[in-house]
Amino acid sequence: MNKQRYCLTITYDGTCYQGWQSQTNGVSIQQKIESALHTLFQKKIAIFGSGRTDSGVHALDQKAHFDLDNKVDVNKLFISINALLPKDIRVLKIEPVADDFHARFSCKKKIYQYHIHRREVIDPFNKNYSLFFPYPLDIEKMKAASKYLIGVHDFSSFANKQDQGSAKNNPIKNLMRIDFVEKEFGLMIEYEADGFLYKMVRNITGTLLKVGGGKLTPEDVKTILEAKNRKKACAAADGKGLFLAKTFY
Amino acid sequence: MNKQRYCLTITYDGTCYQGWQSQTNGVSIQQKIESALHTLFQKKIAIFGSGRTDSGVHALDQKAHFDLDNKVDVNKLFISINALLPKDIRVLKIEPVADDFHARFSCKKKIYQYHIHRREVIDPFNKNYSLFFPYPLDIEKMKAASKYLIGVHDFSSFANKQDQGSAKNNPIKNLMRIDFVEKEFGLMIEYEADGFLYKMVRNITGTLLKVGGGKLTPEDVKTILEAKNRKKACAAADGKGLFLAKTFY
Repeated sequence: MNKQRYCLTITYDGTCYQGWQSQTNGVSIQQKIESALHTLFQKKIAIFGSGRTDSGVHALDQKAHFDLDNKVDVNKLFISINALLPKDIRVLKIEPVADDFHARFSCKKKIYQYHIHRREVIDPFNKNYSLFFPYPLDIEKMKAASKYLIGVHDFSSFANKQDQGSAKNNPIKNLMRIDFVEKEFGLMIEYEADGFLYKMVRNITGTLLKVGGGKLTPEDVKTILEAKNRKKACAAADGKGLFLAKTFY
Repeated sequence: MNKQRYCLTITYDGTCYQGWQSQTNGVSIQQKIESALHTLFQKKIAIFGSGRTDSGVHALDQKAHFDLDNKVDVNKLFISINALLPKDIRVLKIEPVADDFHARFSCKKKIYQYHIHRREVIDPFNKNYSLFFPYPLDIEKMKAASKYLIGVHDFSSFANKQDQGSAKNNPIKNLMRIDFVEKEFGLMIEYEADGFLYKMVRNITGTLLKVGGGKLTPEDVKTILEAKNRKKACAAADGKGLFLAKTFY
C-alpha cells in the first residue's frame, strides 16, 4: 500500500447548500465532494474540512483533506473532480500532503469577510453575496467597538451553543484584526484570527451592526464580551454575507 | 383624466428568466413587472422596453415606459413595486416623462458589455455572469477584427432572422466603439451603438472569439460583414455573459 493524504483547496457559492457539513436536511458541499470522490474511486472517501460554514455561507479558500490508498496523478484528479462537481463548487488545487496534515487542526489562521450591501436598492447581482442594509451606519462607532474585541479573549458571548464542544473546550481565540473596508457595494468587514467559534463572525457582525445603528454603544460590546454569555450578544448576521476568504497553514 | 407616462430604470439578473419579453415558454422580466403593476393598479398595464434581452442576459440599465390614467407619487410607487418584485429584478428609478417618450424609439444609443471568464477554473461566483473560456485568445487579433465592424454598416450577417423586422427594415447600424477591457475575471468587450439587431452582440462576440482562437483571421470578419448573410458568421456567444449596461435618451 502506498497511502497518500491529499489537500483540496475549494471555492464555493454557498447559496444552494445547507452549509459545508453533511447533514440530513439538505445538500451540503462536503456531500457533493465526497460523492464526486466516490464516483472516481468507487468507494466512500471521507473528507475533513478546515471548519464548517453555515447555510448560504461562501468560501474562496476552504481546505479539506482525505486519504487514498494509492498515489494518484493530481492533474488528472483535478480535471475529473471538477468535471463531476456542480459549477458552484470548484476545486482550485489538489496537493499531496504529509500524513499528519489535518485541514482543521493544522490550520493556523483564517480570514473571514462579511459583505454589507449599503445601497438604497439591492443590487440583483449581489443579493446572495451580501447582507442588504440600507440603513445609516456610524462606522467610526463600529471601529471603536471592534477595538474591544481585538486580541486574545474568551469569545463565549459570540459562540452559538450548537458549537460541537469547541467553545466549551476552548473559547479563547486570538482575534488579530478587524478591518472595515469600503467597497463598491458598501462595507466589507474583515476578520483575522487563529480560529473562530461556531457563528462567531456572524454574531460579532450582528452586534457591530447594532453599534453602527446606534442601538448599542461601543462600550456595550466590551460588556457583552466580558459577560461570556451568548444571550448578551445580538442575533447573527445573515449567512449569505459571509465568505471564508483565506486559510493559513 | 390626468394621464401620465412613466419611465422605469431597471436592473436584473437574467439567470432565472426566459428574457425580457413576455412569452409562453417561461417567465419573462416584462411579465414580472407587469404583474407587479397589475397588483398595484388592479388592471393590466403594458410596459414597453428599450429592447429585448434574451434568456440569461442581464441588465444594469434597462428602460421601459408605461401609461397611467392618473399621476401618482413616484416615491411611493418606487417602494411598492420593488416590494412586489423578486430580488433579481429591481427598479432603480421611476420618472414621469413626456407623452411622446418611447423606451424603444426614443433610445439614441446603447452600451452592451460581454464578459469572458478567462481563468483555468470557473469562478463559482461568476458562473451565471460570464462565458467561461479557458482557452488561449489573441486579443490583438480580436482588436484588429473589430476595426472592420466599427462604423456605419449593414450588420445583416450578425442579425438572427428571428429579428422582428428590424434587420429587414433597417439592418444599418452605427457601431461607434468596441473596447477590450481587461478585468479581474478576464476580458470584457464593450459595444456602443445607436442600436443593435437581434443577437447582434452575441453573434459578433462569437465571431471575435473565433478570431481570438485562430479559427478565423481578422480579414475574415470583413468578408463576413460584407456578405450580409447570417450564415457566414459564427454561433452566438452564450447569453449569460451579456449585460445591457447603459441606455441613452
